Amino acid sequence: MVKALDALVDALRRLPGIGPKSAQRIAYHLLQHERDTAQKLAAALSYSVTHVRNCVRCNTFTEEEMCATCTQGHLGKRDASVLCVVETPADQLMIEQTHAYSGLYYVLMGRISPLDGIGPKEIQLERLLQRASDGIVREVILATNFTTEGEATAHYLSELLHARKLQVTRLARGVPVGAELEYTDLSTIAHALADRRAS
Amino acid sequence: MVKALDALVDALRRLPGIGPKSAQRIAYHLLQHERDTAQKLAAALSYSVTHVRNCVRCNTFTEEEMCATCTQGHLGKRDASVLCVVETPADQLMIEQTHAYSGLYYVLMGRISPLDGIGPKEIQLERLLQRASDGIVREVILATNFTTEGEATAHYLSELLHARKLQVTRLARGVPVGAELEYTDLSTIAHALADRRAS
Repeated sequence: MVKALDALVDALRRLPGIGPKSAQRIAYHLLQHERDTAQKLAAALSYSVTHVRNCVRCNTFTEEEMCATCTQGHLGKRDASVLCVVETPADQLMIEQTHAYSGLYYVLMGRISPLDGIGPKEIQLERLLQRASDGIVREVILATNFTTEGEATAHYLSELLHARKLQVTRLARGVPVGAELEYTDLSTIAHALADRRAS
Repeated sequence: MVKALDALVDALRRLPGIGPKSAQRIAYHLLQHERDTAQKLAAALSYSVTHVRNCVRCNTFTEEEMCATCTQGHLGKRDASVLCVVETPADQLMIEQTHAYSGLYYVLMGRISPLDGIGPKEIQLERLLQRASDGIVREVILATNFTTEGEATAHYLSELLHARKLQVTRLARGVPVGAELEYTDLSTIAHALADRRAS
């Protein structure tokens, strides 16, 4: 009915996870109660699109040519001999928040997923292999997700990296902290048993 | 880590129904795969905020001073003697889409909700009463939601309108189309029984 409104609802619908009803609810809410929020969001979107790019070394999002983490590695403030491979910047952020890792990252910005037509070429594995073979990296930690696609990606990478005589590790699988065995799935328990450690 | 990205995630989080994880996922998705969509959304937000306002007669969203529906009413193309009161433009849209109504609307842009500090003054019932008493309106259909707040709003309005000798009606309550009695809640069935009609 109102063209400007239809255009806004259409644009909101294209966001991942937002259906037509949610898009309409958000548009109406913004226009009736939160015009300031709408203005701020518009500004943040424009600014991000023009200023955020991918780090030349690790692919993660950055406003500079090289991201803060890679720059720290460059200055010797992080351990450049360990490279952690993750699927997305969100995964990288989770690992950073553990404060349990001081090496560098390589962000795939995807995963191998043949069903979606995403093969090794699409996620630029060649660049990762070059990076891992730079003579500085000694260990590559595969921290892709434990989903079918993530596991396939890790498996594929593992073979390529082993062929280059690199040390390759994978995040441990096991029972999550705080979990009860009774409610943990059997394959997780099986992995936890197989990977049991001295206590 | 990246300021522009943090600002975008913060702005997205302020949308209704979007939590911190969704906001991050949307931001990353837009920047990695859909920069066009992000630009379009920014433009749609800016345009809507500056161009969409409330209709001077019925409150609904419009780009003109008077909305298309009210203008049709003005030109005699809709029945100006019936006024349907709804809570939001979304509710109005639903009723329009039924093609079962040819009267005019009054959009409350809210509902009476004492717990949220929203009383009769906050939703400008005075303006509705003036409109309903203009000598043209003969029947007011209360189409607020069948929630506690919507029912309270309808009840309150009903008393005020009856005092002005207007005909006041309420949407019928009953069993939804396609529903099975076995899975319909009892109070709905009770209403459907009480309001049963000749067949």
